[in-house]
Order: sequence, then C-alpha cells, then structure tokens
Amino acid sequence: MASGKILVAQGGGPTAVINQSMVGVALEARRHHNVQRVYGARHGVRGIVDEDFVDLTQETSHNLELVAATPSSALGSTRDKPDARYCHAIFEVLRAHEIEHFFYIGGNDSSDTVRIVSEEARKANYPLRSIHIPKTIDNDLVGNDHTPGFPSAARFVAQAFAGVNLDNAALPGVYVGVVMGRHAGFLTAASALGKKFEDDGPHLIYLPERTFDIPQFLADVKSTYERFGRCVVAVSEGVHDAAGTPILSLLAKELEHDAHGNVQLSGTGALADLLCEEIRGKLGIKRVRGDTFGYLQRSFIGCVSDVDQREAREVGEKAVQFAMWGTQDGSVAIRRTGFYSVDYELLDLAAVAGKTRVMEDAFIAASGTDVTDAFRLYLRPLLGSGMPDAFRLRAAPVPRRNTA
Amino acid sequence: MASGKILVAQGGGPTAVINQSMVGVALEARRHHNVQRVYGARHGVRGIVDEDFVDLTQETSHNLELVAATPSSALGSTRDKPDARYCHAIFEVLRAHEIEHFFYIGGNDSSDTVRIVSEEARKANYPLRSIHIPKTIDNDLVGNDHTPGFPSAARFVAQAFAGVNLDNAALPGVYVGVVMGRHAGFLTAASALGKKFEDDGPHLIYLPERTFDIPQFLADVKSTYERFGRCVVAVSEGVHDAAGTPILSLLAKELEHDAHGNVQLSGTGALADLLCEEIRGKLGIKRVRGDTFGYLQRSFIGCVSDVDQREAREVGEKAVQFAMWGTQDGSVAIRRTGFYSVDYELLDLAAVAGKTRVMEDAFIAASGTDVTDAFRLYLRPLLGSGMPDAFRLRAAPVPRRNTA
Repeated sequence: MASGKILVAQGGGPTAVINQSMVGVALEARRHHNVQRVYGARHGVRGIVDEDFVDLTQETSHNLELVAATPSSALGSTRDKPDARYCHAIFEVLRAHEIEHFFYIGGNDSSDTVRIVSEEARKANYPLRSIHIPKTIDNDLVGNDHTPGFPSAARFVAQAFAGVNLDNAALPGVYVGVVMGRHAGFLTAASALGKKFEDDGPHLIYLPERTFDIPQFLADVKSTYERFGRCVVAVSEGVHDAAGTPILSLLAKELEHDAHGNVQLSGTGALADLLCEEIRGKLGIKRVRGDTFGYLQRSFIGCVSDVDQREAREVGEKAVQFAMWGTQDGSVAIRRTGFYSVDYELLDLAAVAGKTRVMEDAFIAASGTDVTDAFRLYLRPLLGSGMPDAFRLRAAPVPRRNTA
Repeated sequence: MASGKILVAQGGGPTAVINQSMVGVALEARRHHNVQRVYGARHGVRGIVDEDFVDLTQETSHNLELVAATPSSALGSTRDKPDARYCHAIFEVLRAHEIEHFFYIGGNDSSDTVRIVSEEARKANYPLRSIHIPKTIDNDLVGNDHTPGFPSAARFVAQAFAGVNLDNAALPGVYVGVVMGRHAGFLTAASALGKKFEDDGPHLIYLPERTFDIPQFLADVKSTYERFGRCVVAVSEGVHDAAGTPILSLLAKELEHDAHGNVQLSGTGALADLLCEEIRGKLGIKRVRGDTFGYLQRSFIGCVSDVDQREAREVGEKAVQFAMWGTQDGSVAIRRTGFYSVDYELLDLAAVAGKTRVMEDAFIAASGTDVTDAFRLYLRPLLGSGMPDAFRLRAAPVPRRNTA
C-alpha cells in the first residue's frame, strides 16, 4: 500500500514527560522520507475507535518542542482497557486509514493492547508495524530499568518530603503523606531521597511490597516520636494486610464498629485521614497531620527531571527507528549501561504485556520501613540535575542568664 | 546598658521565604558596629520563654545564604498565642539577656505579641526596640500590598492548577482542589493564574469572602461540565454558608442525617472528599476527583518566587534599619510603588496587630466564582520569573475514512 502514514496515541495516567515521547515519535518520523503523514489519535485507543485523529504533520516543530515540555497527555488519554473485540475495532480503523505504523505510549494495559492489535494484523495479513512505548509513574513495567514518567514523579515526591520534613521540624508533630502506587512501592520509596540528615524525615516508609500491620505501624510511630520528638511517614496508597485487604478498608470498617459510621472508600483523602485518626486516638499525640499527594505528584507543572525528559524523548525516537529499520513488533525498553547511562532495546510484546513489576527485595531495608543504599543509588541519577537542597543553621547555643 | 545584643525569632506557619527575613536581619545587623551579638530564639516566643537561644553571629555568611534559600523556619516555629502574662515572661528574659532589639517574623498574632512586649518594655522603662516583620501565606495582614510568603505559595497553587487542568483535559471529569486560607481567599484566587486558554480550568473558584451555597455550587459544576465536558474547581478550605457555618460541618452533618455516619472534621482531606461525594451523588458524574493541597503548598522545596525571596530578605534588612536609625517600634510593611516595584515603611503596631485583611471586592468577579483582571494584574508580578507555561497542539483534524 505504501501510504506513508503512521499513528501515535497516549494511554493511561498522564505524566510530566509523556508528550516528550509523542513528540519524539512525530519529529523522528518526519525525518524518514517514506513517512507522509503522522496522525495522533485523541484520547488513546478511544480516539482510534472513534476515528478522532489530528494531523501532527501540520504542527510546527517549534510548537511540538513546547508541547513536549508541557506535562500531561497533549493528545488526551483514556482509561479504556480494550478486549479482543475492541482491538479488532482498532484494527479496522487502522486499516481504513492505511496506517502502516502504530505507536502506543502507555503502561501495562497499553502494551497488552498493542500485543492484541499486532496479532489481529498478522491474522489479517495486514502489513502493520506496532510498537509499544513505555510510560508509567508507577515504574511497574517488567524488562525496564525504569519507565519514563517515574523519575519526574519521584522527584516531586522527594521534593515534597524534603519540604514537609522541614515544616514538621519547625512545628513538630506526626505527618503522614500518602503517595500513589497500588502494587509497586517505587514512588513511595522515592520519599527517601528527600532526606539529608540522620534525624530528617521520612522516618518511616510503608510499601505495598510488605505487609502493613496496624499495631506495628503505631509502635513504629510511637518510638520514632519518642526519639525525635516528631515523625514523618510516607505511606503507599496500596498498603494492605497479610490477606491482601487494603488498610483503607480495614480502618473504615473499624470506625464503623466504633459507631463512627461509614467512610467513603472512594474519598481520596481517606487513608491519610484514617491513619492520622488512629495515631491521635491510640497514641494520644495531639499534632497529627495528613496529606494525600493526589494528582499533584503526576501533573505539577515545573517539577520535572531533565534525565526523564531526555529518555522519554528517546524512547519515542527509538520506537520509530525500531519500526523503520527493524522487522519486529515490540515494546521499547530502557536498559542501564553505566552510572549513569542508558540504551534502548525492543522486547517481545508478550514479555511485557500485562505483567507487573514490584520493588526488588534488594531495594527494601530489613526493617521493612526504609529503603537500602542500593535503591538510593538506583534512583538518584534519575532525578536529574538541579535538585533543590535543604540547609540548616549550625546553631551554637547561648548560655542561659534568666534567674527569675 | 549598650549590650549590643539583638534577638530574632520566627512564629506561626512556615513559608518558602521566612528564612530570607531571618537572614536579612542577621546579615544587616552584623553590618552595624554597635551590634555585638545576633541571637535567634528556637521555636518563636516559646524559645524566648524557655531561654532557648542560638548565636547567629557564629554562623558563616555563606551558610546563612544557603539557609535563606531553604523553605520553612530554620529557627523553628510555634503556635503559641501569648497573652499579657506570657508577654511579660518574654520581656523578663529579654531583660535578663540585655536584649536591645527584638525582631519577630510572623503574621497577625505575632504582630500582636510584639505590640504587647513593646508596651511592657515602655512601662518598665526598659530601652527595647521591637519590630514586627510580616510573613503569611494567607496575605491577610492589613496595611501591606502583600505579605512575604504569599507570592511563593500563590505560585505553587497556580502551578498546581495549571498541571491538574492539563491532567483533567487528558482524562475529563470533575476535579476539586482545596486550598489553604480560612478567612482570606487570596491563595485560592491564585489558582486563576494557572489558567491560559478560555476553556482551561480552574473554571470555578470559591472564596471565603463570598457565601457558599451548596445547590448553587452543584448548578455551577453541572453547567460547566455540560459546556466543557469537564470541570476544574478551586475551593478555599474556609468556605461557609450565609450564617458563617463551615461547609465542611454542613456536609458532614448531611451525611449523618443520611445515616452515612459522622466524618472526622479534623481529617484534612474531608472537605474535598465530601464535595466530590456531593457531585457524584447529586449530579451523577462518574469521574470526580478531589485533592487537598495541604502542607505541600507552603513547604514544597523548589517552588519559590524570586520576587518573594527578594522582598522577604528586604523586610528583614529594613527592620534592622528602622530599628537602628529610627525612634519607633512598629511593623514593617510593603507598599507597591510601580509595576512592578515596592518600598517599605514602618507602621504603628496597633494599626496591624490582630487585624485581618480579606480580598477586596475589586478582586472578585461579579459571578462570585472568578477573579477580576485587577487581581490578575495585582498577582502576576509577585509570582516572579521563570513561571512554567503550558502549550497545546494546534491539532488539525483528519477526515474520517472508516465506512464499516
């Protein structure tokens, strides 16, 4: 057919750098003489099924660069998780437009979509090249050293904890910050990079990779508070008990038993509020504050890792190169080659699709409430240049004089 | 006595730039030959009563500069609101150390403390010069064009809304962001500076200066959602009904009547969660998300206005100059002299102490859910240089081809 048409789309939760990947595809594709049109689908796979395309070939490269530096998904995104039937509908539209190359930027679900579309095309003998481009703040794609989007979100979390630690030191008490990540604790663990001095918070870090025991949690907070006169805690939204039941449900139920009534599980601030309530009620500590970082951690404009920007751009570029010069569909993956350097490879879609990576044991301290130096070494280069730093007074004491 | 001793302390909620003011005092005081020692009290007035002083004269100027650029109160802070007896205790310690100049960086309560200490000294014929240095993210000190700390917090709020607007455009729904400020809506209003295009959020802004009516709120959200297919809302934590009852209490009570049980009012995420619940329940909109910006908006490291930094430094410097070359106790205030330029003056403590400024009518749109251009013009220069900007695709549509 030789239509010279390629299609790119963005799926799942937006990140600070997902537009870098989209622009990486668009600009790299425009360098190839056999490419005549670069289309973008609005709102991910939904926009393919709805045939809602925009022509990225008509964008100026100048504006594309500005969009690349803008957070969130410029083409729009979707939470649709296509089944085989949906993937068939995608394929029909690709065929109608004679699309020869399909690039989908997203996480686990998106890679699975690409896998099924790729199979549909093969079954129909339609010459489609399908490439999945990695993206997720959760850092939970297998086969990748890390995923674009994670470093910038990690930087936000590290900076947030560096700041709340200083705030908590000025007005001591207990602070609980709830971080995104239902199954993988990478983003919550990033809070450790906000710590500078030994007495700085976060003093305790709770990950979904370890069982969360409420009495143990209270004991941890109590002993930290007794030691430092304050306590800063990082908690993953996905913490659960040994049976896998989310702590949010357990605490909500306990409140019900206490005739305190139901709590809306869907309320995004609920876990932080309930953990604070436990600490206040069971430990008798007065100043207890909780924040849920919510959407700020993935969308805040102006907090981005330059390393993440660069790599997100490159996975887009490489996706086009793998498509043009290779003979395989696949998922682009980041491989670490130095301290700090990376290269890219194309993995089989089946090796990535629908699988979930969680934090390696080597990254989690034996206590279960801290990270290891291996994790600090892993994460630090990803956060990029210009990380803000916190300084304190040397504070020479003045002898007392008041005898009143 | 001529002890050559001065004392500086920090009170109330920390800000991104309160250390600039403390360092401004310390460095400027060290330039004066009659100053032999610059003491800092730990944790505000509490550290004075407890005689917990550090000798800032022994700090290197290099480290002081690094501390100045670090958010939160490096000397520590306090929520103590001194009464006359407490102020007398403060005065006794100042006398024991032969402190000749007392500088207190804080908001309304802190200015009132300085006022009472100043009177105590006069009554005792003790030669003390007492100066209040302004600071509050709420921007609610009378007599000031604006207060140090507010511009940086406003910048955080504007950047946060610029980001969540992009996120909400990618995955459409209703988003509610709750911002600090119990009586003054300045910080919530700053969300408007995150908006670039006409269809960008925040689409609705609710301030404590206007009565919050729940049915009207739901009608506003409904019509915005129908118009744009999404809705981003900024709400002040201090919104209340016509009788002054906080909306948080009203919604919690309504839930109780519905047999949904009590909700902890102290839970910091509660207002956002309850407003989202209302929208879901009454409007039947499925994707409704709420965030409470919490401590991030005043402590996040790496989000600061350079204008705010400069002015916070200057109010500290000017406080020392007013003390050394003037003959009056007072409160340093910022006066706007150009677009954009400021100067500083010393106001009577009685003119500032214990009073609360709220948003002027000229800053609030007739709709009650937006700000005016007068407010945009007022706030923009305060946010400083290097504000991140959001760009979108021009998005030329592609004609449909699928006839299936």
